[in-house]
Amino acid sequence: MFKFKIFVTLKEGVLDPQGQAVKQSLHALSYQEVKEVRIGKYLELEVEAENPEAARERVKQMCDKLLANPVIEEYRIEQADFEPVEG
Amino acid sequence: MFKFKIFVTLKEGVLDPQGQAVKQSLHALSYQEVKEVRIGKYLELEVEAENPEAARERVKQMCDKLLANPVIEEYRIEQADFEPVEG
Repeated sequence: MFKFKIFVTLKEGVLDPQGQAVKQSLHALSYQEVKEVRIGKYLELEVEAENPEAARERVKQMCDKLLANPVIEEYRIEQADFEPVEG
Repeated sequence: MFKFKIFVTLKEGVLDPQGQAVKQSLHALSYQEVKEVRIGKYLELEVEAENPEAARERVKQMCDKLLANPVIEEYRIEQADFEPVEG
């Protein structure tokens, strides 16, 4: 079993209304020092595979097909150290 | 200006319907090897402050007050290396 962390973020230049909304909320809570907020998705996946390379290749396909919108998003895959599953 | 990365994830044991839905979609796309999917938020913040410690303390407050729901979520703050802003 292999564990991966995936970070899906908006591409540079793509408007981030959610980030803007959070920034305004932070300003309303008197955190005026916040200059920029960008919001993305963070996923943790556990995948069975022969080896880490095969697992990573499959995870990359999953990102391309489902987890990230290639038009406006980019993603980064990190293999996480994996605690052995009991039982 | 200081840049922080914030990872907001569901606490252990909290049901993750979004993660379940993504897992089912991946299975439907023939990625049966996916055993677990957990979904969280990933934020990048740019904050003005005197020093990194002061900035981090303020970001922690922002997480406690707005960015993470303390009942079901936990968060992790990382200071990111920061590219100087032009102009």
